Amino acid sequence: MKALVYHGPGQRTWEDKPKPTIEHPTDAVVRITHTTICGTDLHILKGDVPTVEPGRTLGHEGLGVVEEIGEGVANFTVGDPVLISCVTSCGRCDYCKRGMYAHCRDGGWILGNMIDGTQAEAVRIPHADNSLYRLPPDMDPSAAVMLSDILPTGHEIGALNGEVRLGDTVAIVGSGPIGLAALLTTRFYSPARIIMIDPDENRLAMARQLGATDTIASDPIDAVMKLTDGEGVDVVMEAVGIPQTFDICQRIVRAGGHIANIGVHGKSVEFHLEDLWVKNITVRTGLVNTNTIPVLMRILEAGGVEPALLVSHRFALDEIEQAYDVFSQAAEKKAIKLLLTAH
Amino acid sequence: MKALVYHGPGQRTWEDKPKPTIEHPTDAVVRITHTTICGTDLHILKGDVPTVEPGRTLGHEGLGVVEEIGEGVANFTVGDPVLISCVTSCGRCDYCKRGMYAHCRDGGWILGNMIDGTQAEAVRIPHADNSLYRLPPDMDPSAAVMLSDILPTGHEIGALNGEVRLGDTVAIVGSGPIGLAALLTTRFYSPARIIMIDPDENRLAMARQLGATDTIASDPIDAVMKLTDGEGVDVVMEAVGIPQTFDICQRIVRAGGHIANIGVHGKSVEFHLEDLWVKNITVRTGLVNTNTIPVLMRILEAGGVEPALLVSHRFALDEIEQAYDVFSQAAEKKAIKLLLTAH
Amino acid sequence: MKALVYHGPGQRTWEDKPKPTIEHPTDAVVRITHTTICGTDLHILKGDVPTVEPGRTLGHEGLGVVEEIGEGVANFTVGDPVLISCVTSCGRCDYCKRGMYAHCRDGGWILGNMIDGTQAEAVRIPHADNSLYRLPPDMDPSAAVMLSDILPTGHEIGALNGEVRLGDTVAIVGSGPIGLAALLTTRFYSPARIIMIDPDENRLAMARQLGATDTIASDPIDAVMKLTDGEGVDVVMEAVGIPQTFDICQRIVRAGGHIANIGVHGKSVEFHLEDLWVKNITVRTGLVNTNTIPVLMRILEAGGVEPALLVSHRFALDEIEQAYDVFSQAAEKKAIKLLLTAH
Amino acid sequence: MKALVYHGPGQRTWEDKPKPTIEHPTDAVVRITHTTICGTDLHILKGDVPTVEPGRTLGHEGLGVVEEIGEGVANFTVGDPVLISCVTSCGRCDYCKRGMYAHCRDGGWILGNMIDGTQAEAVRIPHADNSLYRLPPDMDPSAAVMLSDILPTGHEIGALNGEVRLGDTVAIVGSGPIGLAALLTTRFYSPARIIMIDPDENRLAMARQLGATDTIASDPIDAVMKLTDGEGVDVVMEAVGIPQTFDICQRIVRAGGHIANIGVHGKSVEFHLEDLWVKNITVRTGLVNTNTIPVLMRILEAGGVEPALLVSHRFALDEIEQAYDVFSQAAEKKAIKLLLTAH
Repeated sequence: MKALVYHGPGQRTWEDKPKPTIEHPTDAVVRITHTTICGTDLHILKGDVPTVEPGRTLGHEGLGVVEEIGEGVANFTVGDPVLISCVTSCGRCDYCKRGMYAHCRDGGWILGNMIDGTQAEAVRIPHADNSLYRLPPDMDPSAAVMLSDILPTGHEIGALNGEVRLGDTVAIVGSGPIGLAALLTTRFYSPARIIMIDPDENRLAMARQLGATDTIASDPIDAVMKLTDGEGVDVVMEAVGIPQTFDICQRIVRAGGHIANIGVHGKSVEFHLEDLWVKNITVRTGLVNTNTIPVLMRILEAGGVEPALLVSHRFALDEIEQAYDVFSQAAEKKAIKLLLTAH
Repeated sequence: MKALVYHGPGQRTWEDKPKPTIEHPTDAVVRITHTTICGTDLHILKGDVPTVEPGRTLGHEGLGVVEEIGEGVANFTVGDPVLISCVTSCGRCDYCKRGMYAHCRDGGWILGNMIDGTQAEAVRIPHADNSLYRLPPDMDPSAAVMLSDILPTGHEIGALNGEVRLGDTVAIVGSGPIGLAALLTTRFYSPARIIMIDPDENRLAMARQLGATDTIASDPIDAVMKLTDGEGVDVVMEAVGIPQTFDICQRIVRAGGHIANIGVHGKSVEFHLEDLWVKNITVRTGLVNTNTIPVLMRILEAGGVEPALLVSHRFALDEIEQAYDVFSQAAEKKAIKLLLTAH
Repeated sequence: MKALVYHGPGQRTWEDKPKPTIEHPTDAVVRITHTTICGTDLHILKGDVPTVEPGRTLGHEGLGVVEEIGEGVANFTVGDPVLISCVTSCGRCDYCKRGMYAHCRDGGWILGNMIDGTQAEAVRIPHADNSLYRLPPDMDPSAAVMLSDILPTGHEIGALNGEVRLGDTVAIVGSGPIGLAALLTTRFYSPARIIMIDPDENRLAMARQLGATDTIASDPIDAVMKLTDGEGVDVVMEAVGIPQTFDICQRIVRAGGHIANIGVHGKSVEFHLEDLWVKNITVRTGLVNTNTIPVLMRILEAGGVEPALLVSHRFALDEIEQAYDVFSQAAEKKAIKLLLTAH
Repeated sequence: MKALVYHGPGQRTWEDKPKPTIEHPTDAVVRITHTTICGTDLHILKGDVPTVEPGRTLGHEGLGVVEEIGEGVANFTVGDPVLISCVTSCGRCDYCKRGMYAHCRDGGWILGNMIDGTQAEAVRIPHADNSLYRLPPDMDPSAAVMLSDILPTGHEIGALNGEVRLGDTVAIVGSGPIGLAALLTTRFYSPARIIMIDPDENRLAMARQLGATDTIASDPIDAVMKLTDGEGVDVVMEAVGIPQTFDICQRIVRAGGHIANIGVHGKSVEFHLEDLWVKNITVRTGLVNTNTIPVLMRILEAGGVEPALLVSHRFALDEIEQAYDVFSQAAEKKAIKLLLTAH
């Protein structure tokens, strides 16, 4: 079969590779029908993620059809259409029993990282009963593939960790794919106002289309303070991953407010406890557990969210190298999420 | 009457001052029977709290008897024995209606800060209906005075903000008065283990007496990791207020764990988001709201907590200058909390 | 002034009465600009509410302008446009401090019950600081008057007590005014499905307009089981107040589900613990606290709810007797809520 | 091997039966070292539980040693000392993923009910990874066996469903084994007062030993109202299972309070919604999920609870018929829980 293989910093090829097989009784092999590329894949290609070794197939998002199952798999049979969670979870360790799949003692984010991933014609999924989700028959794949990672991340690490409540004023710093996913899922909890902050006007226009009530391209601290009569916001989400954007969050959160960190940070930040110790704030961090995939699927079926709007570009699966080229120039190409379809 | 008056950095005297009077219909004047000294009072004396102007009577803790009430006061009458909350709250602004008294728009921590405090023979208490609590007849004053500030702070900003749960492993960094108050109130929620961390062996001995299951005087990160099989702790409370102790907290909190910051910080800290972004942790900060005073009073009446054990030294109220001398050498004098009694 | 006065079962007149005056320092007198009629007013007229004595002015909902304030009132001044909460609360008793205004020790539901109410040209509001809410300048009065009682009741006793969560299947038994208010506010929490149950097809049509995904006019237990593959619903709200409708709730709630009782019951019901003891369900009851009025007002301002759609008929205030005639034949007249406007 | 077999109402014998074997890859066979008898076993013997067919081995509590495992079992190996949960759970259905093991689609309470149970020399445990818990080396078996059912039931269905909070006044109606287990676990949450209600003075004496602050043998409604100044209790637990005791609960719960139903009810009860609709109360029911077994085990190890105090009588496993005789005359024999030990 073909797979997108990492060969060290800056090097990736769509090349032949042996098809995966069942290694453990709880495994399934899934033929990929759709996949996408995540910002994290670009980080890997920069060499920033040391756990990814050369020879690894990338990708941790996707849809497919079950081709083979181990004898310990109970929830699926061959031929089932499935959604692949970006997080693999055994379902029986202490973390899994608490719903903390990201910290599974025999899983977590390993796809396209410690084991071969989904940017291929087929993938082996360990602990299939807990790591795959049956796709409803008529679900639009452009929407469904967003449930592998980006929508649950926006939801769990943005909206839920931010404890968005009815009537809140929410700010999201960063209007890229993950910020927009946070925006879409924040709306489930009916805040009064969602302020998107990003220097890129294209992305802010997209944010307004997806339900942002206010957008800010420059001087975000002043602008938020003006919009909120100097009070600041109830919830702020960091969706970039650098010290400057975390700093904005600290400056605009109001007393009693929440900071939800979604961004992947490569270095430490300065945390202004000399101001914040007295402000009764909460900061939360986290990797997605994807334990909200079932409920997101119900909402998607009910028409309560339209994640397909995040898909800006479409490719055939074997055009994936071209897709990487587009995604790595996201701003210029106005790329948000790409859909890759196997034919 | 006599009062302990601040006259600029390093300068305080027990001196004559006019007795306070009712200024607003919701005020009460309380004759002080007992008070104590807080670590914050020492910070004020160093000149670290710029809102405190020379001429101010210090103190924000105390018990007393209502001597005079404004015509808008409904909950109290002259002669009532009362506990004074360190936080004044109007009860009718948006923050107060949410129980966030620390951020009251006409109050907050103002006693002994923006207005004259409790280290005096009498004090004016604004918004008496929300800022005073009736004392049960037979309550030990040594215990009761701990409910003005230190016990609710340990409880709200330590145990509640740390979300201590049944069976948790909790670490408290700093075994001074506030760390010990956090220890006492953490026990309400039945953790399996409470680890106290402090270089002072006297304070650790006190912690063991008050219910710590483990104590650590040096190399706290290694020691905690050994005690927890490398997992770290479910909850860690910062009860010192310097970057080094906040750093210990970041290093020993486990995935999914909580950091509750109780310490008063004078400068920013380095926050290791490069490690913590992936760990699903929560950091909370806060000034005490004292909205748990009523429940703490019920527990105290029921014999469920013994805060009088925190009282290490006793003085007459007019010996307060001597008490300050002792408290400012807390380590040498083995001082925890001091009880000052008017005669 | 004129007022709608109760003179015993079945007897009410729009008649002259002395204008109310300030009786306590925390009172305000409000000139009524808009009011409405509640189903409870009809119960009173049947003689079902023994606390209402002949001579009482009815009504507990309304908007107006502050005409006079006691000297203890801080949040309002003469001329302020205000919303009147159906629940009066002192703000300083133990229940009020916990946000349980319905059980205020010097208030609760007393307007148009134990004291004269809002169906008059003016009304005295005790504890004005906690019982009135400032109206934003451009708020549509048809919408705003729904915030006195019916919208907070649907929200607090329906959506919040039912613990509606993202993706839930919710059933509401009773599509009258309160059932429809529960429907509008349930939508804040993004359930996947809202099933309205009522024998009246007009009311079901209204429910569909307001966002119901399914409606059931007959055989509700079978119909719900068919719609839910035999599982039952996550949340069911009782919005009628009779044993038969409570019974439906018990039959359609799924394991782990919630029953929120909104209906006003005149007699006991049979509770099927022989089936339900094993089903891990929750039943909640309650009188509205109206402590969510501020957040509902923010949502209304942000365009997130359209309660004005509940207004089916409009009258001048002095046509109130005619309005009562219409409202007491609600089904025939297709009446939901009536708006009475003073001129 | 020997097993205690049900042969229809009133008939049970300790008799030979084939030893269980692995039937599914996720099964384990456990050699029983300790077991006990539950009140539910007596109900079964009365013929009250129609799912139990003649020929069934009874019992759903116990400790043992793993003798054989299916190839899909990952958490255990032969020789491991284990605690058996009374609830079997697959860990991968929708209910299990939400922690609702009692409603597992391939499990729930089936041991000694739909499949052979633990009152035998060996038992087959389906879904062993989720239904067994490793025993710490030095745990007292008298204490540990209480974690199969009675302690998690008291905890989850009593203390947690009752939402016991710091400083609450709690009443428990019924001071039998389950009421006492509720008492022990309620103490984890530091209520100010625990009132036990039971006509049997022996059981009340036991309750006082285990931490009850007040006990009531007769006229419970009046007595509770006297103890609480007419307010009623914050939390009341029904630990009997008949209409009269549920009625007591309704009469003594205060506004805003909680009723936790633990009792197994054979018929419906009269629910006084005509009084309670206005009182903002919560009623919860449930079968135990046993998902708190791990935390209870940590607390037991830490010395935070002493369930061994519930053991009133000890027998050898092959004396089980005699043990049943004693347990069926619990009041006369002052029996609470019996420990049966295999030799």
